[in-house]
Amino acid sequence: ATTFRASEHQHIRYNPLQDEWVLVSAHRMKRPWQGQVEPPLLKTVPRHDPHNPLCPGATRANGEVNPYYDGTFLFDNDFPALQPDAPNPGPSDHPLFQTEAARGACKVMCFRPWSDVTLPLMSVPEIRTVIDAWAAVAEELGARYPWVQIFENKGTMMGCSNPHPHCQVWASCFLPNTAQREERSQRAYQSQHGEPLLMEYGRQELLRKERLVLTSEHWLVLVPFGAVWPFQTLLLPRRHVRRLPELTPAERDDLASIMKKLLTKYDNLLETSFPYSMGWHGAPTGSKAGANWDHWQLHAHYYPPLLRSATVRKFMVGYEMLAQAQRDLTPEQAAERLRTVPEVHYHLRQK
Amino acid sequence: ATTFRASEHQHIRYNPLQDEWVLVSAHRMKRPWQGQVEPPLLKTVPRHDPHNPLCPGATRANGEVNPYYDGTFLFDNDFPALQPDAPNPGPSDHPLFQTEAARGACKVMCFRPWSDVTLPLMSVPEIRTVIDAWAAVAEELGARYPWVQIFENKGTMMGCSNPHPHCQVWASCFLPNTAQREERSQRAYQSQHGEPLLMEYGRQELLRKERLVLTSEHWLVLVPFGAVWPFQTLLLPRRHVRRLPELTPAERDDLASIMKKLLTKYDNLLETSFPYSMGWHGAPTGSKAGANWDHWQLHAHYYPPLLRSATVRKFMVGYEMLAQAQRDLTPEQAAERLRTVPEVHYHLRQK
Ligand SMILES: O=P(O)(O)O[C@H]1O[C@H](CO)[C@@H](O)[C@H](O)[C@H]1O
Ligand SMILES: O=P(O)(O)O[C@H]1O[C@H](CO)[C@@H](O)[C@H](O)[C@H]1O
Repeated sequence: ATTFRASEHQHIRYNPLQDEWVLVSAHRMKRPWQGQVEPPLLKTVPRHDPHNPLCPGATRANGEVNPYYDGTFLFDNDFPALQPDAPNPGPSDHPLFQTEAARGACKVMCFRPWSDVTLPLMSVPEIRTVIDAWAAVAEELGARYPWVQIFENKGTMMGCSNPHPHCQVWASCFLPNTAQREERSQRAYQSQHGEPLLMEYGRQELLRKERLVLTSEHWLVLVPFGAVWPFQTLLLPRRHVRRLPELTPAERDDLASIMKKLLTKYDNLLETSFPYSMGWHGAPTGSKAGANWDHWQLHAHYYPPLLRSATVRKFMVGYEMLAQAQRDLTPEQAAERLRTVPEVHYHLRQK
Repeated sequence: ATTFRASEHQHIRYNPLQDEWVLVSAHRMKRPWQGQVEPPLLKTVPRHDPHNPLCPGATRANGEVNPYYDGTFLFDNDFPALQPDAPNPGPSDHPLFQTEAARGACKVMCFRPWSDVTLPLMSVPEIRTVIDAWAAVAEELGARYPWVQIFENKGTMMGCSNPHPHCQVWASCFLPNTAQREERSQRAYQSQHGEPLLMEYGRQELLRKERLVLTSEHWLVLVPFGAVWPFQTLLLPRRHVRRLPELTPAERDDLASIMKKLLTKYDNLLETSFPYSMGWHGAPTGSKAGANWDHWQLHAHYYPPLLRSATVRKFMVGYEMLAQAQRDLTPEQAAERLRTVPEVHYHLRQK
């Protein structure tokens, strides 16, 4: 019988945090690609565009004029999917037709005044201001809502509708699907094994090394064992931290530095402004914040779609939508490629 | 207090089949779209391209030459994500690092010899030959594998890498995530309520009417109550049918006719060859096919991404990837739009 090798032989792997399996078929990278090629990136975004509602001094859809902000700038989303005051749908009349109230808040956070400077091109102290702003908004909205989802859609390929570097914050009165799933998995692991799932997971990855991308005094970046997207990563604190606002100043500085390294590697990988969706997950907040959430460990997921080049992405369609995610290179291969990519941004090298 | 109206007030809805919630915020359709616009469709696909490996008489990647087929044509995928003989990964050494064997088969099915004729432009008898071929391949691979996923990725936007109308069949030795989830939900519903979830669901939708798109003697098409994609539909037989091969000749003819109507409506909705991923779900097969699967009801899901126009899609990114799906028009609004769209294809009307 042939000996199993993950990089050659298809198999399925379990993602214990989200309780899902992924089909890994690395031999598929050999197939030629004749499908859709993404439009090449707009090469230059103007530093300031007075008609862009995210720029300093610009007028937004609701008529408000943005201040000439200097660091981060947080404001209410002018087209919020969640508003604080939606009426209650009332009781459902059938178990197959259940509706519940959705109340919440949607905010937009610009990272810096300039439209042409993405996170990896910002300085470490500038990234630190973003981290502090994340912690502040998580604290503020977390006082009122059980779930505060901070996320960034980077690049038009990820549905980002404005080139000015920014993220969003959607807070809700309910725990979204993914939060529920991570809550169940982490709670079950703690009760079975007596420690947080992600603490043991991080420790194991440090021992096994093959999926590590970056390590620092306070943080780890790795391609998760059950990763779905080609170059997906997980960013984890070494200490047991349940929520963003708990991070110490030293952890925040170190986070800014490791984020800059990771995002620079991402950009360098295919020499493009690497698109992704990313977001933070931490213990639920709101009125039940005081309960025992020790099974939770703070983490960020990065989900980048590119697979082969700056214009050829992985499509999560057909089989993926109807059955199960499938990936074309192993998480270990992805981690190795990310490890070997330089930490100096290609824009700066070219100069 | 304001009275709740689904078309105006955000809320969350439960999808009982897949045990997930969706955030519905219909007021969001008002927001302007400044994000990515898809490249317009290639207007004409040549009827026959000798270099296209899906065409009659063409040479495929493995050197085989396609026959001059006349109806459907089924062959082994030259770049299969699942192969029959992958070695077993062996036992896992840690609960957070679980790997299992993945064995299976991947096939491609061309619908017709011509590259420029999609399903909605085929005649009802021609579509019937596709349905018979689906039933046959489900039967053949179902004898060996517990799950046979038949799916079609239509359009480059859905990662389809070849313009020749075709679908795929991926059979596996494991139940994929979605199959597991639908199995759990349908089993639980049957044991609590004494009848199949989707039988009661179909009956309720027939009574409630507001989400129906098409009905025929043997089939229903509706926008599910918890639909995620803007114009997502569910295709259901009226009779309790567990698997595709069980369909009677009359049910197959009627299916061909309702598929033609649905897909014509899709194309007419935004006057474009409407992209989607679709696929069939039925009771598990393989060695356990003889067990009691009466809680299963055969169905097809259609997941089309377009939202506003032929070139503006819904992006399932950021919040959707990290928290929960969000939709911008209600399922009732989508059903109403689909109901009012004509059943004659715009290509034929223009002539
Ligand atoms: O097999 P194809 O059409 O080349 O590939 C397409 O469908 C597959 C199954 O849904 C996906 O895994 C691929 O990402 C997609 O591009
Ligand atoms: O809010 P934006 O950037 O306009 O919109 C983008 O992000 C949202 C949250 O992930 C998604 O629901 C939209 O589909 C996407 O286009």
